Amino acid sequence: MDRALDLAREAALAGEVPVGAVIVSGGEIVAEAANETRRRPDPTAHAEMLAIRRAAHTLGQERLTGCELYVTLEPCAMCAGAIAHARLARLHYAASDPKGGAVDHGARIFAQLQCLHSPEVTAGTGEGEAASLLRAFFVERR
Amino acid sequence: MDRALDLAREAALAGEVPVGAVIVSGGEIVAEAANETRRRPDPTAHAEMLAIRRAAHTLGQERLTGCELYVTLEPCAMCAGAIAHARLARLHYAASDPKGGAVDHGARIFAQLQCLHSPEVTAGTGEGEAASLLRAFFVERR
Repeated sequence: MDRALDLAREAALAGEVPVGAVIVSGGEIVAEAANETRRRPDPTAHAEMLAIRRAAHTLGQERLTGCELYVTLEPCAMCAGAIAHARLARLHYAASDPKGGAVDHGARIFAQLQCLHSPEVTAGTGEGEAASLLRAFFVERR
Repeated sequence: MDRALDLAREAALAGEVPVGAVIVSGGEIVAEAANETRRRPDPTAHAEMLAIRRAAHTLGQERLTGCELYVTLEPCAMCAGAIAHARLARLHYAASDPKGGAVDHGARIFAQLQCLHSPEVTAGTGEGEAASLLRAFFVERR
């Protein structure tokens, strides 16, 4: 999660909403990304989406079975859907997101009967730092 | 929708789940895509996602305000989330998808209180042809 927080800090410096994501397999980082929606521009370029795309490319497979995703903010519905499609084994997120998160709030994607794969979820590691980066970013933009 | 159905047919020939998507702005096609999850490989490479990324790139903006998306299958949670992020004005889908769709089934993304933008939705145009392409594809794979 420390690396994901570094990536979130880099996103903020680039004028992006500060969210970072890292995908780990067998203790090694296989992909990492920061939010890039403004730079590209691409509304789908959340850190989780970019990390999943990169991991699939690096591993040469559509399913990231056995991989774990670390992300600094609770994933939205788009990213939670992608996590299910990718068959990620575990999701670790730092800050919770009552307004946009769809893991423990809103659509609760993994709790839907329709959901074909639900990762194990742990939340809260790095929460203080992740939330403080987001708060500072949005205060500055107001 | 005819063009989206053509793209779905091309996807089937390439061994992909046959789904096609087209984004239109002011009566002109600005982006189109077929499902490419297997070819890339990339679990996020649904037709809608690729079309949204291409349209944002072509128009040079993160938000596709005023654009309409035509897709041959009811979008899943990931794609519905992306449609909301992209602020697409209208969504037209052909075949409904009780198992994986998240517009009129499952997570019903646009009906969530949390959802920041809901497109107008029309369903059913081209449904017979879209559903028949999907059925033929899955029968052949069994």
